[in-house]
Amino acid sequence: MRSHYCGDLRKEHVGEEITLNGWVHRRRDHGGVIFLDVRDREGLTQVVFDPDREESFALADSVRNEFVIEVRGLVRDRPEGTVNPDMPTGEIEVLGKELVILNKAETPPFQLDEHQQVGEDVRLRHRYIDLRRPEMQDKLRFRSKVTNAIRNYLDDNGFLDIETPILNRATPEGARDYLVPSRTHEGSFFALPQSPQLFKQLLMVAGFDRYYQIAKCFRDEDLRADRQPEFTQIDIETSFMDEEAIMGMTENMIRELFQNMLDIDLGDFPRMPYAEAMQRYGSDKPDLRFPMELVDVADLMAEIEFKVFAGPAKDPKGRVAALKVPGGAQLTRKIIDEYTKFVGIYGAKGLAWIKVNELEKGAEGLQSPIVKFLGEDVAMKIMERLEVQNGDIVFFGADKEKVVSEALGALRIKVGEDMNMAQCEWAPLWVVDFPMFEETDKGGVTALHHPFTAPSCSPEELKANPLTALSRAYDMVLNGCELGGGSVRIHDQAMQKTVFDVLGISDEEAEEKFGFLLNALQFGAPPHGGLAFGLDRLIMLMTGTESIREVIAFPKTQSASCMMTEAPGEVSAAQLRELNIKLRKTP
Amino acid sequence: MRSHYCGDLRKEHVGEEITLNGWVHRRRDHGGVIFLDVRDREGLTQVVFDPDREESFALADSVRNEFVIEVRGLVRDRPEGTVNPDMPTGEIEVLGKELVILNKAETPPFQLDEHQQVGEDVRLRHRYIDLRRPEMQDKLRFRSKVTNAIRNYLDDNGFLDIETPILNRATPEGARDYLVPSRTHEGSFFALPQSPQLFKQLLMVAGFDRYYQIAKCFRDEDLRADRQPEFTQIDIETSFMDEEAIMGMTENMIRELFQNMLDIDLGDFPRMPYAEAMQRYGSDKPDLRFPMELVDVADLMAEIEFKVFAGPAKDPKGRVAALKVPGGAQLTRKIIDEYTKFVGIYGAKGLAWIKVNELEKGAEGLQSPIVKFLGEDVAMKIMERLEVQNGDIVFFGADKEKVVSEALGALRIKVGEDMNMAQCEWAPLWVVDFPMFEETDKGGVTALHHPFTAPSCSPEELKANPLTALSRAYDMVLNGCELGGGSVRIHDQAMQKTVFDVLGISDEEAEEKFGFLLNALQFGAPPHGGLAFGLDRLIMLMTGTESIREVIAFPKTQSASCMMTEAPGEVSAAQLRELNIKLRKTP
Repeated sequence: MRSHYCGDLRKEHVGEEITLNGWVHRRRDHGGVIFLDVRDREGLTQVVFDPDREESFALADSVRNEFVIEVRGLVRDRPEGTVNPDMPTGEIEVLGKELVILNKAETPPFQLDEHQQVGEDVRLRHRYIDLRRPEMQDKLRFRSKVTNAIRNYLDDNGFLDIETPILNRATPEGARDYLVPSRTHEGSFFALPQSPQLFKQLLMVAGFDRYYQIAKCFRDEDLRADRQPEFTQIDIETSFMDEEAIMGMTENMIRELFQNMLDIDLGDFPRMPYAEAMQRYGSDKPDLRFPMELVDVADLMAEIEFKVFAGPAKDPKGRVAALKVPGGAQLTRKIIDEYTKFVGIYGAKGLAWIKVNELEKGAEGLQSPIVKFLGEDVAMKIMERLEVQNGDIVFFGADKEKVVSEALGALRIKVGEDMNMAQCEWAPLWVVDFPMFEETDKGGVTALHHPFTAPSCSPEELKANPLTALSRAYDMVLNGCELGGGSVRIHDQAMQKTVFDVLGISDEEAEEKFGFLLNALQFGAPPHGGLAFGLDRLIMLMTGTESIREVIAFPKTQSASCMMTEAPGEVSAAQLRELNIKLRKTP
Repeated sequence: MRSHYCGDLRKEHVGEEITLNGWVHRRRDHGGVIFLDVRDREGLTQVVFDPDREESFALADSVRNEFVIEVRGLVRDRPEGTVNPDMPTGEIEVLGKELVILNKAETPPFQLDEHQQVGEDVRLRHRYIDLRRPEMQDKLRFRSKVTNAIRNYLDDNGFLDIETPILNRATPEGARDYLVPSRTHEGSFFALPQSPQLFKQLLMVAGFDRYYQIAKCFRDEDLRADRQPEFTQIDIETSFMDEEAIMGMTENMIRELFQNMLDIDLGDFPRMPYAEAMQRYGSDKPDLRFPMELVDVADLMAEIEFKVFAGPAKDPKGRVAALKVPGGAQLTRKIIDEYTKFVGIYGAKGLAWIKVNELEKGAEGLQSPIVKFLGEDVAMKIMERLEVQNGDIVFFGADKEKVVSEALGALRIKVGEDMNMAQCEWAPLWVVDFPMFEETDKGGVTALHHPFTAPSCSPEELKANPLTALSRAYDMVLNGCELGGGSVRIHDQAMQKTVFDVLGISDEEAEEKFGFLLNALQFGAPPHGGLAFGLDRLIMLMTGTESIREVIAFPKTQSASCMMTEAPGEVSAAQLRELNIKLRKTP
C-alpha cells in the first residue's frame, strides 16, 4: 500500500523513502535514464529510474502508458534547471528503487490528453478511461464535497435525512413516468418518482418537522442537451416556516456553499416578482449579469398603420417590446441575420432593428428598414423612451406576449454573452409572486408549479379569478439558470380540493390519484413548505461545465442509453411472462 | 414560528415568553382549567389555559387530539406536587396566553398509544399518523444520524460519494431484477440494480481510489419478514488496499459508530474461517453471544447399526453432530417437541436427544429414546467427548452436512435465547476464508459470493480444484446477523475469464453480459476491493427492532405493495402502447 499519494509529495518530503501506487501517465527516455510520470487521484509525480538498478530499470523500460504500478523510492530535489513550476510536485522527483507492475494495460482507445479529438461516443463507451482525466476527477470530487457540505449544513440545522421510495404508484395519465411491471400484482405497475413531492409532504404531516434527501428522480422525456432520464435533487421540506423563513435558510445554505467551496460571496439575493421579471427580462429566470432590459413600446405603436407592430400592440395577449444594445450599431448584417434566425427558435417571425448613427440628425440619423413604416415621429418617441445614444442598436419584438418575451429574453442573453456585457460573475435572485395557473393552448388551466402549491388568496378568490391569483412559490435563479424552486404547500383539505376543482380534476380522479394526500390533510397537517435544488445543475454552474454529462459518473446519452453497458438491453421471454407482459412488436 | 421545540423546555426557561407549534397530544379538563399536552418532534409540553383569558380558553376548550396549534405563553414552574419526573419537561408548564388553531383534525383511525391494538395494515395505510409515534420518530431520526456519521467518517477518510445509475442494463437470466421498459429503444429494458457492484469496480478502474455511496438497491423476490423490494446499502470500494486494510478501516467505522451513537465499545472483532464457523456453530454468521457449540460425533457413530446415525456418519457429504445444552435436562417433552418442529424448518427429519440425569450411574443415568440404538458404550463415549454434567441435555443431528449445520445452528440460537444464555450484549466477528464456489443441487458450480470475488490461489489451481479453492471474501457478522460483506475483487482479465469458465459461463455469454468489465480489466485495472453494509439491518440491530418495516419511512408489505398509496397501480393502454408492451392477461 502507498505511503503517499503522488500528487501530495512536496519539498518537505525530500529524503523520505516512500511508496506510490498509480498509473503510468507518461514514460520518457532521456540521457540513458527513464522518467515515469506516475498518476493517482491526487496528481502526478516524476519517478526516475537509472541503469544502476538493473532489475527495476528493465521493468521501468517495459512499462507503457496506463500500466498500474507500485514504486518504492527516495524523494529528492530535482536537479537545478529541471524544476517544473507548473506542477504542484515540480520541485521534487522520486528516485525509483523498486518497481512492481500490478497490472498491464493495452494501448487505450484514446490518450487522456487527446479526449477532445475523439467523439463523445468513444469516451462514453470507455467511460472508465475518460473518467481518469483530471477534469473529470476534479468535477466528481467537487460534487462529492458539495453534497457533503450540504448534508452537514442541513444536519446542523435540524433536518433529518429520510429516504422515500423509488417504487411508487403508477397512475393513468402518468406521462413521463418510467414504469416497472409488478410480478406479484399482475397487470399493475410501479412508477419511478419524478420527485418525492407527496412523500415529503406526508413526512410533514407525520411531524418530522424538517426533512431533506438527496434523491434520485426520473423523467422519461425526449432529452435536451441538459437533461438526463435520472437526475438528482436536493429535496427539502419544513413545517411551520413561511416563505420568508424557507428562502432565508436555503439562500444561506447556497451562500455558505459558494463561500466555502469557491470563496465567492454571493451577497444577499434580491427578490423580483414574476411579472416584473417577464416584463424587464422576458424570462422567469432572468440572467442579471447582463444589464440590458426589455422596454415595452406597444402604446407608441398602437395607432400606426404597420400591422406587424400595430396588431400585437392592440392585442390584449400581444406584446411589443424593444431591446437596446449599447454599442450595437457595429453589428454586421451577417450577425443580425444570425440573431434573426436565433429568435426564430422561439417563434419570432423576424427581428426588426434600428441602428442609432447620428441622433443629432433626428430620424435622419437612424439606420433601419422599419423607420419608414413606423413613421419618424413614432421612431423618435421610441428612441427617447429608450434613451439611446449614438452607436446603439435597438431590436424589436412584436407578437404574442410569450413569443416576444422568450425571443427577446433569449436574445438579450445571447447578445450579452457575444459582446461580453456581463457586469459581474455571479448574479443570484429569487423570483417570487408567480401566478397560480396559466392558460393552456386549449383554453384550459394548468398549474404553473404543481397543484400542491398554496395560493396567496382565499379559496373563494381563487375560484373567482384563477388566472390572476398568485401563488406562494419561489424560484432561486443564478446566472439565468433555475437552481431550485419550491413553495409553501396547501395544508388545508378544502383549499386543495378547490385547486383540483379549478384544474378540472374531478372528485373521483382526485380521490383515485391523490386520495392518500387528501386523507392526510384531514388528520392534522401542519403548515409546511419546501424547495428542491437540481444538484446536477448546481454542480455544472459551480464548475463552469457546459454539459450535464460531465458532472455525472455514468450518464445516459440523449437517446437515454448507456454507451458503456449498452443499456437498455434485451430480456428473455420467460422474464416477461413472469411479469405478465409481452412485447407489442418484436424488435 | 416557534421560539422553542416543545420537548426542549426546561427549568432554565422559566419566566420566558415562548411560542410553540405542534399537535394536541392530549386534552384534559381539571378543576375548571384546560391542560393541553402539545407535541412536536422533540417531545411534549403541558400548556395550561385558565378561564381568565376568555378567548384562548374557549379555543383550548374546542381543540381535539391531533389538532395543529400555535401557542404563545409564559414558561413557569409547575405547582408543587404536580412535577412529573417521568417527563423531560415535567418540571415546567406553559401558561397559555394566545392560541391559534392552524389546522383541525378528524378523529384519527387509531390513537398513537393504541397502535398495537390495530393491525399493521391500518397503520401502514395511515402511515403519516403511525410515523407520529415517538418510537418511529426516534428510529428515523437515529437512522438519519447514523447515515450522517457514516458519511462523515468516509469523507474524513478520503472516500468520494459518487452516484451510480439506477437505470441499468437488463440481461436475459436477470432473475430478481425489476425491469423498466424503454420507450426510446423498443423492445429493450432497463433493470434496477441489485447492487452497484460493477459500477464501483469501474470507478476503481477509473482511478477514484476510494468510493462510497449510500445506495438504493432492488430485488424482486418473494419477501421474507426481513426483506424489502428496495433496500439501502452502504457501498464501499477502494484501490490498492488488501483485505486486512479494508477490514481494518470498515471495522473501525462500525466500532466508532457504536461508540458514538450508543456508547458501546465493540472491541476488536475476532476472525473466524468459514470452515470453523460451520463446524463449531453450524452457520456462516455465528451468533457468538451464545457459548454453545456443535460437536462432531460421526466417528463414534460410523460402526453402529442404527442407520439414522450410521448412514450420515459414513456419507462423505453427511454430518452427525451434537449440541450440549447445559441445564437443559429440565426441558419438557412439549418444548422438545417444539424444537423438533423447529429444526424441521431446516429439513431435519427429527431431533434425537439424551438427558443427563445421573452421570455417576453411567448409561443407566441417561434418559433418552436413542441410547438403546446407539449402544451404551457409544453413548458414554459421546458423553465423555461432550464433557456433560448432570442436568444437561444433548441434541443430535444426522443428515446431509447442510441440513445438520443449519438445523443445529438455528437450534443453538433458539435455545440460547429461550434459556437466556447470552454472555454479552454484542458479539461482532469477521468470517473469512470462504470457499470460492459451492456445488449446486444439480452438480454444477456456483459462486458463493459473486463471480468478481478474487480467489486466494492461482488461475491454474482454481481450475484444478474449484471446490476447495478459497476466496478473499469477508463478512462482518454481529449477533448472528450479516452486517456487511465484501471481498478483494479480480483485477486481472485472465483470472476473471478463468472464474467465468469454472462457472460454466461461455465466452459469448461473458462478453454479452460483462463485456464492458472484461474490457475495463485490460486497460489498467488496479487491485481493488470493497464491502457493502445493509443499512436497514444495521439500524434494526442498533435500535433493537424486530421488523425492517419499523426502520423505513414508507415500507412495502410482504407482497411488495404500499398500503398508503396503493402502489403498484394500473396504467392506461396508451402508456403501455408507447412502451411497446401489452398485458398478457387482463387482470
